[in-house]
Amino acid sequence: MNAQEIWQDIRRVREQAPLVHNITNYVVMNTTANALLAIGASPVMAHAVEEVEEMVGMASALVLNIGTLSSPWIEAMLKAAQEARRRAIPIVLDPVGSGATAFRTAVAQRLLREAPPAILRGNASEIRSLVLAGRATKGVDSTHSPEENLESARALFERHGCIVSVSGATDLIVGGGAVIRVRNGHPMMPRVTGLGCTASALTGAFAAVNPSPLHAAAHAMALMGIAGEIAAQRSAGPGSFQVNFLDALHLIGEGDIERRLRVEQDS
Amino acid sequence: MNAQEIWQDIRRVREQAPLVHNITNYVVMNTTANALLAIGASPVMAHAVEEVEEMVGMASALVLNIGTLSSPWIEAMLKAAQEARRRAIPIVLDPVGSGATAFRTAVAQRLLREAPPAILRGNASEIRSLVLAGRATKGVDSTHSPEENLESARALFERHGCIVSVSGATDLIVGGGAVIRVRNGHPMMPRVTGLGCTASALTGAFAAVNPSPLHAAAHAMALMGIAGEIAAQRSAGPGSFQVNFLDALHLIGEGDIERRLRVEQDS
Amino acid sequence: MNAQEIWQDIRRVREQAPLVHNITNYVVMNTTANALLAIGASPVMAHAVEEVEEMVGMASALVLNIGTLSSPWIEAMLKAAQEARRRAIPIVLDPVGSGATAFRTAVAQRLLREAPPAILRGNASEIRSLVLAGRATKGVDSTHSPEENLESARALFERHGCIVSVSGATDLIVGGGAVIRVRNGHPMMPRVTGLGCTASALTGAFAAVNPSPLHAAAHAMALMGIAGEIAAQRSAGPGSFQVNFLDALHLIGEGDIERRLRVEQDS
Repeated sequence: MNAQEIWQDIRRVREQAPLVHNITNYVVMNTTANALLAIGASPVMAHAVEEVEEMVGMASALVLNIGTLSSPWIEAMLKAAQEARRRAIPIVLDPVGSGATAFRTAVAQRLLREAPPAILRGNASEIRSLVLAGRATKGVDSTHSPEENLESARALFERHGCIVSVSGATDLIVGGGAVIRVRNGHPMMPRVTGLGCTASALTGAFAAVNPSPLHAAAHAMALMGIAGEIAAQRSAGPGSFQVNFLDALHLIGEGDIERRLRVEQDS
Repeated sequence: MNAQEIWQDIRRVREQAPLVHNITNYVVMNTTANALLAIGASPVMAHAVEEVEEMVGMASALVLNIGTLSSPWIEAMLKAAQEARRRAIPIVLDPVGSGATAFRTAVAQRLLREAPPAILRGNASEIRSLVLAGRATKGVDSTHSPEENLESARALFERHGCIVSVSGATDLIVGGGAVIRVRNGHPMMPRVTGLGCTASALTGAFAAVNPSPLHAAAHAMALMGIAGEIAAQRSAGPGSFQVNFLDALHLIGEGDIERRLRVEQDS
Repeated sequence: MNAQEIWQDIRRVREQAPLVHNITNYVVMNTTANALLAIGASPVMAHAVEEVEEMVGMASALVLNIGTLSSPWIEAMLKAAQEARRRAIPIVLDPVGSGATAFRTAVAQRLLREAPPAILRGNASEIRSLVLAGRATKGVDSTHSPEENLESARALFERHGCIVSVSGATDLIVGGGAVIRVRNGHPMMPRVTGLGCTASALTGAFAAVNPSPLHAAAHAMALMGIAGEIAAQRSAGPGSFQVNFLDALHLIGEGDIERRLRVEQDS
């Protein structure tokens, strides 16, 4: 993984404008739609059971996010996922808040089993909760040691066969023997709601244009981190950060990636 | 239609602060509420079947938008629309994504029949889908030739008796023998989510103060396009565009409209 | 109440990052989550009946907001509130639109009775509607005389035993014999959607760190008003205001509060 490969994927997204079907939470719908548009993808949000199968049939990726869940949405997610699997459309699952309540952990586990994603993308706490069900977490954010995170990601890859993308100060993308660490990003990012969800949406856009879910997941995290660094340089606080982040996604060029990319790959 | 007439409507909105009742999609609720406030209108969002009739009874316009539809919302839209009709409150219908799935096309057609709007406002693809049901479109955006768009708008006007407002590089507003073309706007606008929905919301505000739905629809599209041009001049990307667009709606003056308006009317 | 006490609470929020559980309306979820993050709190939005009790059990405050209500959400609010009461977690109730429809007034009254809040926070029209049920209001905003507002707030304090926080040009916080008036703020604030809801969310964050609901409510309104003044100085319109408001919440220092605070207390 290098700057040229990331840039190639960004160019593909801009040229192909892949349709990314999101069944996601109320808090971030606007944010993630705008982030997808800013990188050149075509977002669609649709959750009615009457239409999700038809909608996903036109899409190039499906992003499932359980951030503000209720029962009818689970059914829609399962239907959309089954159709996506039938059509070999890659699924990204963001288990927002898994571990915070038994309900969320159970739903995330059910989706992992019944709607197996190509990429599971969450924070350390959510990923950990899916390994060791029943362990409580505070809210939707938490920290664990890098070693624990790697162990958790590997365990979920073994169990579910999906690439596992864990966001944090260092993002960790794990699949097969490969481990990619992305060290881009900025401390302002956790002070803005929905950037984790945005990472999942962009992961969907990259999965739509890159047949390797490992690389798609890593490229998305690198783009998030680099755009976050550019935005933070120009921002006084989290309000201006959000504005500058969307602008950075839109304006980012190959030189930005070459200069800023901090990535390591073991394989 | 000229700059003075548009300015007169903007002044009426600022003075009367008409209450605009929106039953709209999750993605744009915040955006359209803020756009309505920025032009001086009073937005209210309410979708509970228990209250939509009472709420619309206080409103000066009703905006229905099917962007993130599910069954309970359809019932609320029908109830609100019937009460609006009974009270002669103008209805604006935005058939977001009509043509993308059979469900959306059917719901849009049902609302056209059972809750006839004063103004139908959509993009070319959505409008076309309502003429020729069953034709698939990619996602929620698409392009058609100007001749096709005019033909579609005329067909829907004939069939449903509503003004048809079609957004695009050139906006087309059709009703009776009249055809108005608004050539304002900026290529950044499709890179921001919800600007079509915002156009529908502002159309509702103008319909609340202008008894001619043809003029209300055209004035809204002219204001959208001109505010978009002003915003784009100051914006590095879609993030700053959104900020500057709301500021432009708030700050716009008669001189801005006189200098920038590009409109043609056949009648 | 003075600047030092407000600053102490802000520092506590930044240090403790209290989890604030919101069951709120679709329009403002993103806005209020970002405002809570900007002051250093940890927001969570969750409304599924399957999980609200468990979620609130981890929280330090519960904020209920009826802005875009429907039936399943009422059940979730009641369940969450009962668990919060059982655990002595402070509840903030924002009766958005109470008085606009009979449904909203009835739900707000039911929540006041069955889920008694520590703090009731609304605008003058909403507060008045809860005193004199059946009086119609236009939309979700209205004005009343300062004397009427004080009388309404006192009546609700007597009836329900909760602190009553009424936003307006002068904010009024009433409880027991105490009356606090906060004269900070800016005329741009009502032109942005969701700032009332943001005030309620921040009230929740302060209630999480200050055992006095009277002071928590007043500190939140003072911070809202002062951040609004700072933001307005840098803003051309309501778009840039929103950005600068979040930045101001993040950047605000003790000196800003000392210089700007305009408060009076009778007791």
